[in-house]
Amino acid sequence: MKVGFIGLGIMGKPMAMNLMKAGHSLKVYNRSKGAVKELVALGAEEAISHGDAAVGVDALITMLPDSPDVKSVMIGEEGVVNYAKKGLLYIDMSSILPEVSKEVGSALKEKGIDMLDAPVSGGDLGAIAGTLAIMAGGEKSAFQRALPLFKAMGSSYVLVGPLGSGNTAKLTNNMIVAGNIAILSEALMLCKESGTDLTKVLDAIRGGSAGSAVLETKSPKILKKDYKPGFKIDLHIKDLKNAQITGGKLGLHMPITDLTSSLYETLSKEGLGEMDHSALFTYFENMHHEKNS
Amino acid sequence: MKVGFIGLGIMGKPMAMNLMKAGHSLKVYNRSKGAVKELVALGAEEAISHGDAAVGVDALITMLPDSPDVKSVMIGEEGVVNYAKKGLLYIDMSSILPEVSKEVGSALKEKGIDMLDAPVSGGDLGAIAGTLAIMAGGEKSAFQRALPLFKAMGSSYVLVGPLGSGNTAKLTNNMIVAGNIAILSEALMLCKESGTDLTKVLDAIRGGSAGSAVLETKSPKILKKDYKPGFKIDLHIKDLKNAQITGGKLGLHMPITDLTSSLYETLSKEGLGEMDHSALFTYFENMHHEKNS
Repeated sequence: MKVGFIGLGIMGKPMAMNLMKAGHSLKVYNRSKGAVKELVALGAEEAISHGDAAVGVDALITMLPDSPDVKSVMIGEEGVVNYAKKGLLYIDMSSILPEVSKEVGSALKEKGIDMLDAPVSGGDLGAIAGTLAIMAGGEKSAFQRALPLFKAMGSSYVLVGPLGSGNTAKLTNNMIVAGNIAILSEALMLCKESGTDLTKVLDAIRGGSAGSAVLETKSPKILKKDYKPGFKIDLHIKDLKNAQITGGKLGLHMPITDLTSSLYETLSKEGLGEMDHSALFTYFENMHHEKNS
Repeated sequence: MKVGFIGLGIMGKPMAMNLMKAGHSLKVYNRSKGAVKELVALGAEEAISHGDAAVGVDALITMLPDSPDVKSVMIGEEGVVNYAKKGLLYIDMSSILPEVSKEVGSALKEKGIDMLDAPVSGGDLGAIAGTLAIMAGGEKSAFQRALPLFKAMGSSYVLVGPLGSGNTAKLTNNMIVAGNIAILSEALMLCKESGTDLTKVLDAIRGGSAGSAVLETKSPKILKKDYKPGFKIDLHIKDLKNAQITGGKLGLHMPITDLTSSLYETLSKEGLGEMDHSALFTYFENMHHEKNS
């Protein structure tokens, strides 16, 4: 398939590379040109603008930081919508507000362009390995057209529901991950300050009702104080904010998300925004030291 | 082994039965006599008091509601300490304050009685099936003496550390479980009110970083509104309170536990204390209805 790809960051670049490895031909656009050059060296075509990335391709993928980026690139003044032809398949793999997916999708629908929102989980390692979990929203026919591309980038791909529901699933996922990290940190602090061997406690509880992917993947980082990302605190804050905006409009009460979001904000203000989200443990350590010094 | 057993409640009765099935002979005491009669019918000896349950046995097990019960039964005025002989192995399998385990243990130590604190997870179903996870604190020699008994009641048994650390592990476990249930509930409400199919979202996220034992075991209950316990809200409140007391003395900051504990308190005050702890989801539903009615 000929695929336009906009947004060659930590996630986007390896995703685009996996598409090329799977035999798709790429036309790429990125604001900073380093990643573009790398992909051109591998045989990709360089688009001269984001609008141009949508010209002469079967599908267009965007992997951008947040909702305003997707909106401006797709339906802004110089947006892709002015360049793309009827019949294009558009897949936004950014993690953005579900309502913005719907807004962009309906503007594109008028031009005969089908859109999927298909955010991913699995981080940069999953992007490099081609093992991302892809949560898609949109029409079944569009999902089926996208499958050859999803197979090149991910190891699981689920059509959750209509447009926007991919991002709803992603917000759900990231709310749970943040909450699970927060309570894991709090509980491990109780062990640590009780003078109890964390490794043995983890062995005693991991197979039971306290077991989780977060416990398995984040406890070793906490024990080693290895807060290299992984998933950065500032990105998690963005997702939690999008969850709060989405929940707010639905009139939801989200006290755990409000709390974890504020704890992460504290760390970000202290300059730790680029660290792995498991560094939330240091918040509890610092609070303990402050309270007891 | 000849085993005294005090406390034949929802957990204690099936645990005692599994000891008998494994060939141990039991001497049992319980305040209400129904369970005693059942065990006597199976061949157990009836003790005339809790003190008597410790006489003529190799090991004594208690399975009681909370710290004050263990303290009074063991080191109160008519406490076991006045009846038990040197060399007895005492195993408290109640979930209590780690500091009370230590206090009881040191009073018994003076009489030459070794104590383990060995709380369990797995609920009444695990107690019946003999598949409890046992988290023990105490001396290694005492742990090894207890192994034939643990094997009859559980499928995993870990010596976490010195006396009290079994209960520290249990508090850690139950803090994590409560926090994981709270954020799962909050996140599923976001899906539900977004009009997104919960089953499909769960399929999309369960294999990734949001996956957990709580998600696997509690989501089906939430989807079916089946809040039959399982693990009762009032018991979880007790454990969270013990975590708060323990953390408070250590000068810890435990905002997630404080929050989840207060949410469970709200439900208990509304008369839902006997429901499964997954009924926390109804708190978020009710808050949503109140806010939007």
